Amino acid sequence: MTARVAINGYGTVGKRLADAVAAQDDMEVVGVTKTRPTFEVHTALARGYRLYAAAREHLAAFEEADMPVDGTLGDLLGEADIVLDGTPQGSGYKAAYDKAGVKAVWQGGESHALTGLSFNAYANYEAARGVDRLRVPSCNTTGLIRTLYPLLSRFAVENVNAVMIRRAADPWDTKRGPINAIVPELRVPSHHGPDVQTVLKDLNIQTLAVKVPTTMMHLHAVTADLDAPIQPEDVLDVWKETPRIRFVQGADGITSTAQIMELARDLRRPRGDLFEIAVWEDGVHVRDRTLYYYQAVHQEADVVPENVDAIRAMTGLEREKEESIRKTDLSLGIPTVF
Amino acid sequence: MTARVAINGYGTVGKRLADAVAAQDDMEVVGVTKTRPTFEVHTALARGYRLYAAAREHLAAFEEADMPVDGTLGDLLGEADIVLDGTPQGSGYKAAYDKAGVKAVWQGGESHALTGLSFNAYANYEAARGVDRLRVPSCNTTGLIRTLYPLLSRFAVENVNAVMIRRAADPWDTKRGPINAIVPELRVPSHHGPDVQTVLKDLNIQTLAVKVPTTMMHLHAVTADLDAPIQPEDVLDVWKETPRIRFVQGADGITSTAQIMELARDLRRPRGDLFEIAVWEDGVHVRDRTLYYYQAVHQEADVVPENVDAIRAMTGLEREKEESIRKTDLSLGIPTVF
Amino acid sequence: MTARVAINGYGTVGKRLADAVAAQDDMEVVGVTKTRPTFEVHTALARGYRLYAAAREHLAAFEEADMPVDGTLGDLLGEADIVLDGTPQGSGYKAAYDKAGVKAVWQGGESHALTGLSFNAYANYEAARGVDRLRVPSCNTTGLIRTLYPLLSRFAVENVNAVMIRRAADPWDTKRGPINAIVPELRVPSHHGPDVQTVLKDLNIQTLAVKVPTTMMHLHAVTADLDAPIQPEDVLDVWKETPRIRFVQGADGITSTAQIMELARDLRRPRGDLFEIAVWEDGVHVRDRTLYYYQAVHQEADVVPENVDAIRAMTGLEREKEESIRKTDLSLGIPTVF
Amino acid sequence: MTARVAINGYGTVGKRLADAVAAQDDMEVVGVTKTRPTFEVHTALARGYRLYAAAREHLAAFEEADMPVDGTLGDLLGEADIVLDGTPQGSGYKAAYDKAGVKAVWQGGESHALTGLSFNAYANYEAARGVDRLRVPSCNTTGLIRTLYPLLSRFAVENVNAVMIRRAADPWDTKRGPINAIVPELRVPSHHGPDVQTVLKDLNIQTLAVKVPTTMMHLHAVTADLDAPIQPEDVLDVWKETPRIRFVQGADGITSTAQIMELARDLRRPRGDLFEIAVWEDGVHVRDRTLYYYQAVHQEADVVPENVDAIRAMTGLEREKEESIRKTDLSLGIPTVF
Repeated sequence: MTARVAINGYGTVGKRLADAVAAQDDMEVVGVTKTRPTFEVHTALARGYRLYAAAREHLAAFEEADMPVDGTLGDLLGEADIVLDGTPQGSGYKAAYDKAGVKAVWQGGESHALTGLSFNAYANYEAARGVDRLRVPSCNTTGLIRTLYPLLSRFAVENVNAVMIRRAADPWDTKRGPINAIVPELRVPSHHGPDVQTVLKDLNIQTLAVKVPTTMMHLHAVTADLDAPIQPEDVLDVWKETPRIRFVQGADGITSTAQIMELARDLRRPRGDLFEIAVWEDGVHVRDRTLYYYQAVHQEADVVPENVDAIRAMTGLEREKEESIRKTDLSLGIPTVF
Repeated sequence: MTARVAINGYGTVGKRLADAVAAQDDMEVVGVTKTRPTFEVHTALARGYRLYAAAREHLAAFEEADMPVDGTLGDLLGEADIVLDGTPQGSGYKAAYDKAGVKAVWQGGESHALTGLSFNAYANYEAARGVDRLRVPSCNTTGLIRTLYPLLSRFAVENVNAVMIRRAADPWDTKRGPINAIVPELRVPSHHGPDVQTVLKDLNIQTLAVKVPTTMMHLHAVTADLDAPIQPEDVLDVWKETPRIRFVQGADGITSTAQIMELARDLRRPRGDLFEIAVWEDGVHVRDRTLYYYQAVHQEADVVPENVDAIRAMTGLEREKEESIRKTDLSLGIPTVF
Repeated sequence: MTARVAINGYGTVGKRLADAVAAQDDMEVVGVTKTRPTFEVHTALARGYRLYAAAREHLAAFEEADMPVDGTLGDLLGEADIVLDGTPQGSGYKAAYDKAGVKAVWQGGESHALTGLSFNAYANYEAARGVDRLRVPSCNTTGLIRTLYPLLSRFAVENVNAVMIRRAADPWDTKRGPINAIVPELRVPSHHGPDVQTVLKDLNIQTLAVKVPTTMMHLHAVTADLDAPIQPEDVLDVWKETPRIRFVQGADGITSTAQIMELARDLRRPRGDLFEIAVWEDGVHVRDRTLYYYQAVHQEADVVPENVDAIRAMTGLEREKEESIRKTDLSLGIPTVF
Repeated sequence: MTARVAINGYGTVGKRLADAVAAQDDMEVVGVTKTRPTFEVHTALARGYRLYAAAREHLAAFEEADMPVDGTLGDLLGEADIVLDGTPQGSGYKAAYDKAGVKAVWQGGESHALTGLSFNAYANYEAARGVDRLRVPSCNTTGLIRTLYPLLSRFAVENVNAVMIRRAADPWDTKRGPINAIVPELRVPSHHGPDVQTVLKDLNIQTLAVKVPTTMMHLHAVTADLDAPIQPEDVLDVWKETPRIRFVQGADGITSTAQIMELARDLRRPRGDLFEIAVWEDGVHVRDRTLYYYQAVHQEADVVPENVDAIRAMTGLEREKEESIRKTDLSLGIPTVF
């Protein structure tokens, strides 16, 4: 069996999801939707993805631009088993998906309530088996879950405090600022803490967030209070057995988010993407019962493998999380732990 | 009596110290030193400060540039009661000051060990009475002390965790980056925590620090665990009676460090300086016994009034801290609380 | 006689216009308008400006914020001889001004056609005598006129080519990007060339423009072809007799827009404003008959003195341009040339 | 025959040169040198490149880091026919290359005088046949030559004026600023004009340069005076037959350097590199006899194919420029024109 996957919204996340799905041997991309004939459509077509207009009103623009369109979203859904929704937050396609009878995966811009299930492959793959809809939380939330879930599994974590220093815009997004300011999220906790709790329900976590003038990666400064003293090595040992965590070293010259992105380019990752969460090995410290660490999240990429695993869990392609994660990671060039 | 004050190093801090001293009715600037004939020397001379070469080797450059020099540092110290050291970290002028028999104030780039006394006007003015040398801690450390000292005085603070999001360069400094990255300080704690403890000796505090591509203000995300539940209003009430704290409101459109600096410009502060620590009133939150708040520090300016008070304490110009702080603040346009 | 001046729109330009008008001995600010109760209103009130709502619908917000409002724009215009319009481009207040019978000055966001007269104090003060409405061109256009008009007056300039490297957002404006990109204006010429020609009608000028991630000043790289060989000194001599041009030197350490803004702060200019156009004296070069120079424009400030002179010309307060320019410049701390 | 190529300096350019050489069927990478055991060495080794210490003194550091070193630069040169020098400007390896009797290619940081021949594959391939040393000019100079040489070949170009808006640092380089300023090159012409003339000897060209706070691409605003009127289409037609020029369209959403880099990522280029010069098709304009255009240069990548062609010309692997360019471009994913 091969899962037939539609990509609704071929933007920052959607184009990555398309390529990741296309890289699997048990899935195929049946088509992608777009609202406007931008340069990204050219590469979609060059890569062999069939193009659909997100709605009838957009057809004319593609025709004017001489871009071959195979129909509209409705047509695309008719050929799909499952749709990955890469549309802007609040686009409201749920009714269309329901009507077409396709399973659906949303991204973190949508609320947990929309699907009732928020998904992380390593943390709750089992809960997604056979379900019709779920949500992959945002890049930041996924990043926190990646490093906190294994800690919770092995240690008694009493409390987590995370300060998220967020990139203000994606690299291509030239409209958004700030150019020269730090912008705090004055609501405390920021939405990230409660969002982590949609997956890690018993975790006591507070998050604060600020936005800074960079386009490269979010950085998290995390503090975790445990119920007993530990050593940094204990934590590192756990993370080394965890999928989708990559250690980096200040001592190797990786002293900022910029060198992490350079590393991803050097690794020949498609688009220079880092699907893993980067943790500074020499930035992990313990004082008494408190653990401190820094991690960096490639905002464009870290949720990609989670979406692929979600497809397998929901469609029944693969029952065991380890096997799905292994397949996904092999296909994307991520070092495997299983 | 009038204190005769020398400014050694007329740079980012030194030029502000000169202007602040000149604004006091019980002090005078006897001269400033410089190593090179830059544009800043023109304004120093235009403001009437007498110019001294930091060392004999620099005299020629000033003469070539037709700038009138009154001598070297040695000459200047001979006319001064006290010197404010605004030279780069580690410049090593202590022996020169000792030899000249002048009192000396260093800035936060120097270690606590150099003077044995780190100073904050509101926290430990008394300790500085009559001493020959002290250090005003860095802008970030001074910022933390400003808001934490009054909390310690009124509540039982068990633990403080502060993440410092630091501006990477001053506005004029075009050599330093990063342009597009977040740079974590991988040592934990960063030096700020221990530095706060040079003044607030019993405080349990951990600090983490990251550097970001902005030239405007540091921002601190602070978490404080108290031994009993409180309300945000309790904290605000304490701070409202504390000197050199300024409340700002996201609801008024002050949503980032950029609008705080715009406010300082609108207030007609010299150089657009904000001498106070800015605290977001609508960013102060409490969950159970934990207090969260955001504050912003104008890195070029917040230590300026502390230096002025240090002069009064050390020279005996004024015995009471409230009176010195009131005088300083009135002279600099800072709203007074005493 | 004293001109009664209304400021419609107390924003980036409006607040500076208000302060500049208030600094004249032959004018007074009768009030300022605002649409929302932001932090800037607090400083407006603190400075003694009477506050008016831009429209009736905004009254409630000010009342809720406990800010004393003296009425609406209509009431304000009733007390004014002339209004300086600092509202966003296209706000469309012309009918209101006509109805109230007040003279009006618009800023460069509006088209030349709106008023039929674009104004620069040194270039065409005479044309503005007694008129009811005019427009002060944008900061960039004003900047070009400042250095080109005196050249035209003394040399035969065959052709000018200017590349404008524009700051992408004002310092307080945290919404706009880009954070990390260069954005060319693909239309050639950019609007600046034709806009210069609204004042310098016979000048042959082409302009190209790009936007870059900075909040500090525009920079112009200007090339002018003359009909005969000259020396840089010839050009410098002309500019030295021209108002509102300030020379800076790379050799003094002013190697970028950042040090120019630092200089303005050191000069104790209100808000750190530079009203003059900064020209690098050691960046002026000639090859054969071609002149090359770099100038920097403080986008928030350079049009301010032009507005003040426009008031004098339009209301008949002062007949001679030299006298008006001298008065304005003295009041704002600009070195005078007349 | 296969050319045995050494890469001295595996940094920003060197690592790209290694990968490009490795992608040719008539060349092989015999080894790369490095001075320090950074993260980049890990990827070099993972890619199968043999590692050599740039000098004996660096051996210990690699051994401590458990990185297998095959010797020093001297050993590497002994196995090579030709060396590509990717070391920092002024490193001074000429004597070592001479001693080893290897041919050598330098990059644009070095002066034309070092080799007496500056190279561009399309402009002067023939001149490089069989020579022992040459220099590939810098990214900016190469970018100008790419679009100007074909114009010179077809039109009478009287004069060129180019303003270079330069990225201030590479993406990984977090040390360099400015963060918020525009920095003009006060020397006129900047070094780029004379550097273009090392290849296009009869071209009358002036260049001005400014540095801006971005890490993504240089942008050139070019003005060319021709001796007769032309149409934009005439120019576009010439460029369409020119290798290594890529048209982009503002109308497709490519409105800045950021979207060009996004396009290169979407094209799955290694490291997201754009080897071509990007010219905005809808930014090409003509007024009378003057041509205006904007082009963007990926500073890390555009010289890479030129280096590959230089190897073929120097070693005699390929006599005809069209054939070498075609091979190189096919191997790197660049659309071919021959």
